[in-house]
Amino acid sequence: MRGVIMHAAGDVRVEDRDAPIIQEPTDAIIRLAASCICGSDLWPYRGSDEVDATPMGHEYVGVVTEIGDAVENVKVGDFVVGSFMASDNTCEICQAGYQSRCVHVVPMGRVGTQAEFARIPLADGTLVATPGQPDDDLIPSLLAASDVLGTGWFAAVAAEVGPGKTVAVVGDGAVGLLGILAAKQLGAERIIAMSRHADRQELARRFGATDIVEERGDEGIARVKELTGGLGAHSVIEAVGTQQSMEQAIRSTRAGGHVGFVGVSHDVTLEGQELFRSAVHLHGGPAPVRRFLPELIQLIWDREIDPGAVFDLTLPLEEAAEGYRAMDERRATKVLLTMP
Amino acid sequence: MRGVIMHAAGDVRVEDRDAPIIQEPTDAIIRLAASCICGSDLWPYRGSDEVDATPMGHEYVGVVTEIGDAVENVKVGDFVVGSFMASDNTCEICQAGYQSRCVHVVPMGRVGTQAEFARIPLADGTLVATPGQPDDDLIPSLLAASDVLGTGWFAAVAAEVGPGKTVAVVGDGAVGLLGILAAKQLGAERIIAMSRHADRQELARRFGATDIVEERGDEGIARVKELTGGLGAHSVIEAVGTQQSMEQAIRSTRAGGHVGFVGVSHDVTLEGQELFRSAVHLHGGPAPVRRFLPELIQLIWDREIDPGAVFDLTLPLEEAAEGYRAMDERRATKVLLTMP
Repeated sequence: MRGVIMHAAGDVRVEDRDAPIIQEPTDAIIRLAASCICGSDLWPYRGSDEVDATPMGHEYVGVVTEIGDAVENVKVGDFVVGSFMASDNTCEICQAGYQSRCVHVVPMGRVGTQAEFARIPLADGTLVATPGQPDDDLIPSLLAASDVLGTGWFAAVAAEVGPGKTVAVVGDGAVGLLGILAAKQLGAERIIAMSRHADRQELARRFGATDIVEERGDEGIARVKELTGGLGAHSVIEAVGTQQSMEQAIRSTRAGGHVGFVGVSHDVTLEGQELFRSAVHLHGGPAPVRRFLPELIQLIWDREIDPGAVFDLTLPLEEAAEGYRAMDERRATKVLLTMP
Repeated sequence: MRGVIMHAAGDVRVEDRDAPIIQEPTDAIIRLAASCICGSDLWPYRGSDEVDATPMGHEYVGVVTEIGDAVENVKVGDFVVGSFMASDNTCEICQAGYQSRCVHVVPMGRVGTQAEFARIPLADGTLVATPGQPDDDLIPSLLAASDVLGTGWFAAVAAEVGPGKTVAVVGDGAVGLLGILAAKQLGAERIIAMSRHADRQELARRFGATDIVEERGDEGIARVKELTGGLGAHSVIEAVGTQQSMEQAIRSTRAGGHVGFVGVSHDVTLEGQELFRSAVHLHGGPAPVRRFLPELIQLIWDREIDPGAVFDLTLPLEEAAEGYRAMDERRATKVLLTMP
């Protein structure tokens, strides 16, 4: 089969790989209906994370083609969505809703789902079948549920978004934009999108943003304060993962408010005194997408939300390298890869 | 009147000071029934915070002797308890329960309550009258409510302590010990006290600790994991404020669990990647004691809790310097100062 391999920073190739086979009785094999490139794939692409002929991709939707002997919850032919963290969904941590930290967790980054087929470990706990075979136009949204929607949704839940609240969103990538969609669905009264790109502002508004702040850093914080009677937002979603974005998120939050951070923290350090004085709640980490999948799949199935709108470039799998370039150069927000 | 002044690190003197007068119509003057020395007073005593002939003390109980023209909620003769952060209790932040970050907050550290009288700013929002004049034996507990009990209670609430949960407490000073008492009252199933001092272990058990861990650092974390099926505690109270104690708290918490931190963070930096991977909730800061005062006063009045037991040394105000020495040398957990 064909699959994406990153050989070094900036060096992405589509190559022949062995098709995956069942290794454990809890595995399933799926044929991908589509795959995509994640903002977090840009960390190694830009040299911030190590790679060494690494199979890429951790987002996936598709049809089950084979199951191990122990798999009971999905069957061959099911159309399924799973998370970027395979989980047993039965341990105490999973049951508390933190499947991304399951005691048996398998990060799907080790699997590489920018490929025609993928082996899904812990299939019973990881995969959720859709109510039937989806119409083609639903596939991008279901694929978004696998990571960026689930992550934006978790960020909004972690930030305790709810009715009557003002929410600020730091980051206008796919996760930040879908954090806006989640905030809207969760009943936020006012949603401030921090974005300086016209096309992303447009999508932010479509997803529910009521205000746009173009300023960053101290000026951005000052603008959020201005919009919130000097207090800061009740809830702030952080969807970038840099020192500046974390500080912007914490300082844009009112005392007693909540920061939900889902940008993968790179070289971020938080100063204890500032965190102490801020009196904010801080919660984040790798999103337990599995917790939200049944609800998100239903919302998509019922066409109540359209998270697939974050894909603004569609390319054949074979042209994945161009997809990486487009995202790196910000010519695309998120790239969908179609299968051969 | 007599009052405590810290001239420099280690240099505490009791001196004549002008008795306070009403400065704002929202002020009240109280005659202190007792005062005390806080663990946080040791930061400047040990040279970690600046002092310059600073009036010391921020905990207080006593009788109102005078009120400003605008004060309506307390009257002359009332016995009152207040917090170390004076607050209006009406702004949006106060109403959300974060009176320690009131938009008009006045830190009582600027006032200095290790003295015979004190001026309480924002008296209506800050002071809570007891149901009547308290018996003498209740005064230590009511004084504890002013800070260490309220702070330990907030830490437990911030750590989302509740029925069925396992709680670990980092720090066996007065705040940590009263965090144990709070955890017990809030229904925790199991309370792990991290302490290596026999006398404090005894008080920890009296307040509700079910397990004692004497190890610190990595060994302490490993012991908590051992006691919790390898997962870590659901809720961890951090009541020290050092790099080691914060790391110990975060690493002793299970994924998805809650850390309530109330130790005043000194030279603490948190690494973003670790916080991200830990998937814990982090909340803390200066405790909004005012939120809890009515409930805490009632529990003390009804003799359901005995937080005054943390005072293990009582000295006349005049001998405050010896009180500081005793706490600095860990000969005392917390020192009560009686009035002339």
